[in-house]
Amino acid sequence: MQACIIGLGLIGGSMALSLKKNGFIHRAVGVELNPIHAQKALDLGLVEEVVSLEEGIQNSLLTILAIPVDKGEALISKILDQIPSESVVTDLGSTKYGICKAVQNHPQRGRFVASHPIAGTENTGPEAAFDSLFEGKMGIICDPEVSDPDALELIKSLYLSLNMTLSYMPSKDHDLHLAYVSHLSHITSFALGLTVLEVEKDEKNIFTLAGSGFASTARLAKSSASMWVPILLQNKTHLLKVLDEYVRFMEDFRKGIMEEDHQTLQSLIERANGIRRILEK
Amino acid sequence: MQACIIGLGLIGGSMALSLKKNGFIHRAVGVELNPIHAQKALDLGLVEEVVSLEEGIQNSLLTILAIPVDKGEALISKILDQIPSESVVTDLGSTKYGICKAVQNHPQRGRFVASHPIAGTENTGPEAAFDSLFEGKMGIICDPEVSDPDALELIKSLYLSLNMTLSYMPSKDHDLHLAYVSHLSHITSFALGLTVLEVEKDEKNIFTLAGSGFASTARLAKSSASMWVPILLQNKTHLLKVLDEYVRFMEDFRKGIMEEDHQTLQSLIERANGIRRILEK
Repeated sequence: MQACIIGLGLIGGSMALSLKKNGFIHRAVGVELNPIHAQKALDLGLVEEVVSLEEGIQNSLLTILAIPVDKGEALISKILDQIPSESVVTDLGSTKYGICKAVQNHPQRGRFVASHPIAGTENTGPEAAFDSLFEGKMGIICDPEVSDPDALELIKSLYLSLNMTLSYMPSKDHDLHLAYVSHLSHITSFALGLTVLEVEKDEKNIFTLAGSGFASTARLAKSSASMWVPILLQNKTHLLKVLDEYVRFMEDFRKGIMEEDHQTLQSLIERANGIRRILEK
Repeated sequence: MQACIIGLGLIGGSMALSLKKNGFIHRAVGVELNPIHAQKALDLGLVEEVVSLEEGIQNSLLTILAIPVDKGEALISKILDQIPSESVVTDLGSTKYGICKAVQNHPQRGRFVASHPIAGTENTGPEAAFDSLFEGKMGIICDPEVSDPDALELIKSLYLSLNMTLSYMPSKDHDLHLAYVSHLSHITSFALGLTVLEVEKDEKNIFTLAGSGFASTARLAKSSASMWVPILLQNKTHLLKVLDEYVRFMEDFRKGIMEEDHQTLQSLIERANGIRRILEK
């Protein structure tokens, strides 16, 4: 099978590489508007050919969208308008409610499977792609009941071919949960990076004094704006609520420190330690 | 040389193990008030003997304090009162201004070297100790000019024996810089852990949906309250300032999302991306 990969960055590029490696597809064509990325993707062998959107989707039985979530939402109807009737489209973006809503009444809705591989790094572009990115990770499929059974089966086998574990949920729930466990931690990392960079005048001090703890906490601050601004905006409602809750805890810490309230700080940290239950499962 | 290690947790235990392994000391005796930790440290061979404070410091040429920073500050004068005149004391705590101030007029001040190995993990207790914790890491020595030259030399060679790189700074500057690059990131991690745990009712969702980014950002939320409450309180002045700056950036994100201000969010994230310059050095 030939797949058309729209967007040849970390996610799209890694998908092309790993699906060719495991034989799920035999050939990948790419759609990529950035000519430098397009050339790089060809040089790196991520795809065999870079083609126009129309050519790519009309000649492939599988189309995989791996572009920023606002672009995916804007494009999905047009793609469903033009694909052959037996073709299947999936989207790998980090928010799912918007794109599902955009095509809820589309006559070809059944050919679309909304999914989200919980995998990524803080790096971007075709050079960041690698063929084991998805290995052993979790894949989420949203609103599976509105996809055609054969389309759903194809995307399920795609994920399973990558040794991924599947989970299913409504797209709305997906976005709420992701606000907590992914989008919030990106914002906290961005704010940490900003605070340290803008206030610590001598970057040598950051480099000298930062231990592995800082590196770990600030790692996500390297993540790309073109990918993350659309995610934050698409998940606005949930994120505003989550941010308020987070800032409230920061204020609790501030008050505890200000008032030298040993007991409150102790209790906050001990409650936070509960994260071990999850991280060490 | 025999060293007396006060506090047989991750840091003290790792110090005992690694200094014995590289031959810097030939024997370690420990002072540990928690009888379970004391027994564990003996079982694990971290120290050869557990002794009283008096016995330990009076019979060792080197005393290493590795206890919570408030305890160290409370104990340091008593230790300097009792050590043999040729003995050297160092403290490995994460704040340095308080302990240096506590002994600034002590007649034995010259025997004390304030230091801080930038190394650690989110785990605690004797079982968390391992002999390569300090390998290749940074060691800070504060206010070196008020230590006796021979005492300073001994602690410098201790750090160098562990293949650590040394840096020197006033204790006050140390605490300010650490507020940015270490203490703040612990608080942001604690708050992240709290937010996720207290709002996401079904922990299965956190486990299913959390990717490596969340694990990385929330890792420090596992850190121990008994170690961190004293650090936060000792570094109160700097931390209140740092927390205000951090929360201001969180508010910028909140406002950017609320007003769907693509440009502001883009600019915030791009500025945060500058952290690459430091993390990838």
